[in-house]
Amino acid sequence: MNTFGNIFRLTTFGESHGTAVGGIIDGMPAGIPVDMEFLQAEMARRRPGQSSITTARNEADQVEVLSGVFEGMTTGTPIGFEVRNANQHSSDYDALRDVYRPSHADYTYQQKYGLRDHRGGGRSSARETLSRVVGGAFAKMALRTLGIDVKAYTSQVGNISLDNDWTKYDLSLIETNAVRCPDAHSAALMEQLIREVKADGDTIGGVITCVIQGVPAGLGEPVFGRLNAALGAAMLSINACKGFEYGMGFAQCGCRGSEMIDTFQPTSASGDSNQTLLKTEANHSGGIQGGISNGAPIYFRCAFKPVATLLKPIPTVNRQGEATILQARGRHDPCVLPRAVPIVEAMAAMTILDFYLLNKTIHI
Amino acid sequence: MNTFGNIFRLTTFGESHGTAVGGIIDGMPAGIPVDMEFLQAEMARRRPGQSSITTARNEADQVEVLSGVFEGMTTGTPIGFEVRNANQHSSDYDALRDVYRPSHADYTYQQKYGLRDHRGGGRSSARETLSRVVGGAFAKMALRTLGIDVKAYTSQVGNISLDNDWTKYDLSLIETNAVRCPDAHSAALMEQLIREVKADGDTIGGVITCVIQGVPAGLGEPVFGRLNAALGAAMLSINACKGFEYGMGFAQCGCRGSEMIDTFQPTSASGDSNQTLLKTEANHSGGIQGGISNGAPIYFRCAFKPVATLLKPIPTVNRQGEATILQARGRHDPCVLPRAVPIVEAMAAMTILDFYLLNKTIHI
Amino acid sequence: MNTFGNIFRLTTFGESHGTAVGGIIDGMPAGIPVDMEFLQAEMARRRPGQSSITTARNEADQVEVLSGVFEGMTTGTPIGFEVRNANQHSSDYDALRDVYRPSHADYTYQQKYGLRDHRGGGRSSARETLSRVVGGAFAKMALRTLGIDVKAYTSQVGNISLDNDWTKYDLSLIETNAVRCPDAHSAALMEQLIREVKADGDTIGGVITCVIQGVPAGLGEPVFGRLNAALGAAMLSINACKGFEYGMGFAQCGCRGSEMIDTFQPTSASGDSNQTLLKTEANHSGGIQGGISNGAPIYFRCAFKPVATLLKPIPTVNRQGEATILQARGRHDPCVLPRAVPIVEAMAAMTILDFYLLNKTIHI
Amino acid sequence: MNTFGNIFRLTTFGESHGTAVGGIIDGMPAGIPVDMEFLQAEMARRRPGQSSITTARNEADQVEVLSGVFEGMTTGTPIGFEVRNANQHSSDYDALRDVYRPSHADYTYQQKYGLRDHRGGGRSSARETLSRVVGGAFAKMALRTLGIDVKAYTSQVGNISLDNDWTKYDLSLIETNAVRCPDAHSAALMEQLIREVKADGDTIGGVITCVIQGVPAGLGEPVFGRLNAALGAAMLSINACKGFEYGMGFAQCGCRGSEMIDTFQPTSASGDSNQTLLKTEANHSGGIQGGISNGAPIYFRCAFKPVATLLKPIPTVNRQGEATILQARGRHDPCVLPRAVPIVEAMAAMTILDFYLLNKTIHI
Repeated sequence: MNTFGNIFRLTTFGESHGTAVGGIIDGMPAGIPVDMEFLQAEMARRRPGQSSITTARNEADQVEVLSGVFEGMTTGTPIGFEVRNANQHSSDYDALRDVYRPSHADYTYQQKYGLRDHRGGGRSSARETLSRVVGGAFAKMALRTLGIDVKAYTSQVGNISLDNDWTKYDLSLIETNAVRCPDAHSAALMEQLIREVKADGDTIGGVITCVIQGVPAGLGEPVFGRLNAALGAAMLSINACKGFEYGMGFAQCGCRGSEMIDTFQPTSASGDSNQTLLKTEANHSGGIQGGISNGAPIYFRCAFKPVATLLKPIPTVNRQGEATILQARGRHDPCVLPRAVPIVEAMAAMTILDFYLLNKTIHI
Repeated sequence: MNTFGNIFRLTTFGESHGTAVGGIIDGMPAGIPVDMEFLQAEMARRRPGQSSITTARNEADQVEVLSGVFEGMTTGTPIGFEVRNANQHSSDYDALRDVYRPSHADYTYQQKYGLRDHRGGGRSSARETLSRVVGGAFAKMALRTLGIDVKAYTSQVGNISLDNDWTKYDLSLIETNAVRCPDAHSAALMEQLIREVKADGDTIGGVITCVIQGVPAGLGEPVFGRLNAALGAAMLSINACKGFEYGMGFAQCGCRGSEMIDTFQPTSASGDSNQTLLKTEANHSGGIQGGISNGAPIYFRCAFKPVATLLKPIPTVNRQGEATILQARGRHDPCVLPRAVPIVEAMAAMTILDFYLLNKTIHI
Repeated sequence: MNTFGNIFRLTTFGESHGTAVGGIIDGMPAGIPVDMEFLQAEMARRRPGQSSITTARNEADQVEVLSGVFEGMTTGTPIGFEVRNANQHSSDYDALRDVYRPSHADYTYQQKYGLRDHRGGGRSSARETLSRVVGGAFAKMALRTLGIDVKAYTSQVGNISLDNDWTKYDLSLIETNAVRCPDAHSAALMEQLIREVKADGDTIGGVITCVIQGVPAGLGEPVFGRLNAALGAAMLSINACKGFEYGMGFAQCGCRGSEMIDTFQPTSASGDSNQTLLKTEANHSGGIQGGISNGAPIYFRCAFKPVATLLKPIPTVNRQGEATILQARGRHDPCVLPRAVPIVEAMAAMTILDFYLLNKTIHI
Repeated sequence: MNTFGNIFRLTTFGESHGTAVGGIIDGMPAGIPVDMEFLQAEMARRRPGQSSITTARNEADQVEVLSGVFEGMTTGTPIGFEVRNANQHSSDYDALRDVYRPSHADYTYQQKYGLRDHRGGGRSSARETLSRVVGGAFAKMALRTLGIDVKAYTSQVGNISLDNDWTKYDLSLIETNAVRCPDAHSAALMEQLIREVKADGDTIGGVITCVIQGVPAGLGEPVFGRLNAALGAAMLSINACKGFEYGMGFAQCGCRGSEMIDTFQPTSASGDSNQTLLKTEANHSGGIQGGISNGAPIYFRCAFKPVATLLKPIPTVNRQGEATILQARGRHDPCVLPRAVPIVEAMAAMTILDFYLLNKTIHI
């Protein structure tokens, strides 16, 4: 279950403080030009220490591609890759050998496996998401050739949230601030909040919105492989993600059907009426109807909880169940949202490419 | 992609107005007593026409089990089953042969497959969920022997929602009203609202909450097979489901980490401290940490949109893209929530059983 | 594990003496004309009682298609189907409730599942292969549109075997005799041998050869999804199949490399030299090199053991391990080869279609 | 399709002359002691240059384990590993950029992917099997704790083959000679033959026999996941393997059923007669009946062709289809059998462990 996807498949390995993290991308289409500069730029977006509001860990995160690329092109064979774990402060974690951090995976891994690598969260560490960003970067290289674009941004931090939906913002501004929010004013408020929270030794949650443009109609596999179900599973597999909604999502629950209908725009018929391309007036559906893309932009929102690693003492228990006090010492993010943006994009890109490839099998 | 699950797998077939709908359950554990009365009772909970606030279609929905059961016990071999499509008013749908219903799957199926069975939504009809209830009933028979209980209820209809979380209600009251809400007062208001909406020829959305009790610690497969990701995909594969959140979900986004921590309760050590069972004070996590169950009750919420089939004329287009008026004639639910409750339970039960079985492979 | 295939997937259910056997075909391409007459003719080829050298059971084997076909065309949605078990002589099997037939699956099913349906072999009965022939018939309908043809024949029965390889026979003669052998003289000898064996209450094994023509180069998924590995698994999943070899197979073991090389025929270059189509002088490789089809005919051979159900008393034990005598009473084949021919074809057809569809995902 | 297995899964990457080859083992049971010395010894058995009858390439093949092992124990999380490609003579292969080697995968890869890494066979090189030996070594570590033992040996080279079945040999002698044959006399003849073939610049094929002892009854998943089908697919996925037979295999085709029956040995009843353990007099079935292990030793045979890389000039064509002469220059094995023995064992070990874990899901 360390594999994601059907045709385009990412398998990952690695613990936070092991020798390396990495993975294998299988099913990458052949003949796609490989842009290593772009790959490394994506890694930089996820990297700790990139701004004053993220953790001060300075991981180099240099990806080494080990196979599957020949003379600058993908060959269709699996792409092995790795990132060595260079900057390890394992001694920061010695105190955690026998202590369970509350609201972390320490206790559940111990119960499941009967033993665990306690250093830095081991396999449950968000360092694993590094491999997802590599997978996502390759997926984006393929999607680029199809004119499909994936963009995510921070739309809420704590009680500060954007007032409008994605269509009202210039998404090219996302990368212009540390919090990755396309609205400069809100971004400033969010940053300010994160600084306050950090000063308190606390953490804060938020929402990431993702928009996928250029997806053709027809992607999604009824009935259990609905595109929305696949996107939901992809997002909910990200550390700290507690919720997923697409289109109008939970907001639709309070509405009447007559308010939510995406009326078709009449159009002049094409030659083959079976395949006449249509557009809708509104897009409450979020680009997916009956689990299949309809050609409109796909958008969804992901809830991220405030992470449980506080920089102040908190009560917990050890493996014997005895009360103790936990004092986290490592370097941690007060708010994971800015660094989670590229991870959301990566998971979305891999999902869309996977379903694009799957959809090619519908007809002979 | 008409298969759900890893070890316990349900594959379904069938269109709304074809000969039959049904499926195959593979991976059902051997030696489980089969309770056919319970199975049929579960079907009755999903059945149209069960109350004045659901559609008046009166489908008998008599399940025939074709294999996999011998002398009252499961044999471990696949369970084939079917329900014949008896009460078909296909002529109700003749007008839909060349017309796309907005916010339905008509257009997307046509785009994907190049042709479609237009009668009653064909494969995209919610009649397919009947097979899920069968799968869920068998999963529940197995979970019952493990002391695992799955219960869902309607927690919101339109703007009427329950004030409290699930711990404040007596879940044995869920089936005492047509709307399947454990709070009698709210249930009455919800029913009243649904009647009003129905009188308007309109529809209304809502939220279903699901609670799973008795799940042992250790279920869930990192990193992509997180239990929450699997539950999310299961729910988002249900028709009209637009969102999923577990534990505190989206509400956590506005909170600080220090407010959301599930502190462990100190306990006296067991013999093997590696496996000391722990409980937490609160359960903001929703029974899952790091993608793995921690032994606390699992709870989550699913957003259901108001369905798009209105009983009043709405503008749409035909296959040529020409404007036309759609007048739905079939019998439809003004609110799918009451009938979706057993479907949510079924998907949850199948997911939990599947991960229970998967977890048996962790150790030799 | 009752599912076969990756994209084109057949899931089967049913016991020999249960209510019905059947299955679900998922991933059938959309828009393929459905030939029900052909489907039923394929069933007739597998049917017991079709000639004096097969079992006298007269199963009607009328397939009912329950979904996935609309107005004579496949819709791309799953095709559910079933065959009711009409002609059941369950009482023939009462004596087997507590007795293990040697070299059958009675004991192994009991050990695996802790219980079993003892009637007629239950799930382990070759009646399950009926569903494979249905799946194969649909696969053939799709392959027909691609110009791919699958033909199998009996090439050995006991010590009587064909002298030459498939290229020396007129495969259109296969169906002209009961044993399904393209050589009339050998066929007569084989039939004679089967009659003698039957008269002795005994059974006899043999070999089926299969030839697939028209397969384009490029099918097969390295490294574990080699086309030969998939074909081998498909054949070895058939009851009584004990061996598989492709191309020159075991005969190559005694040879030198210089004798076995398939030299390319020089050709005039095409416009795109990357895709110049080549042919080989010989075809020792059996149409597959490095696990990928090379455009030459694919051929392979399957070993079938003599089935263990004899029509004379044989010593065995009961569930308590006590010695007893088994006297089979049902109606059984003295030689399964003639009826296994369409099953081999069905498995081959499904495999090839599956890999044809998979291969579409290699490029964007 | 670069993944093997269901629960215990190996995914591999790497080309012959890329940066590294390696893989990820997922589903390894937790808490198994890791024996790195044993792992490296297994690698040495597959390594080129280990004797005068194998290729003179001297690959160090030092495995680096990157994750999934903590303080000497498996943690249940994925085991990433790699072997750097140190000793590359890529220039040996420059001449192959535009030339297709006959009976190799050059042409089929080119047809499938539209491009290929021509150096040393790229992904189709047998160097990929190195990763399988790593996977097999971990599987063996787990099987060892269950008392399951996997041993393979060379039973035929060219026209020299062992006269008896495996029960007549002392399998502890397999590693006492370079050809890996438990019969010293035959081994000497085989070595002599390989030397002659090598002197001719030619190659020679043969047969490997594998025996698995200690497998409990009950492994194997009907109907498509028969244990024999899984073993067959595993073996046929090995480079140069052209055939697979288990139990009496093709030899059964000429026999009568009465000769091939594995009669049960009467035994005194156990407490629970449903689970009385039985043995059979003979073992023509090869330890598998109805696709499920019966507790007897499992044995099978694999046909290996003589590899097509000759050390003398052979005619072939280039990408334009023009005739040319191929003169292989690298270092190659005149007979792959000795080095394939550990690969056969590795694939068998992984298959058995996978099905052992799968079988744990049959009961609650």
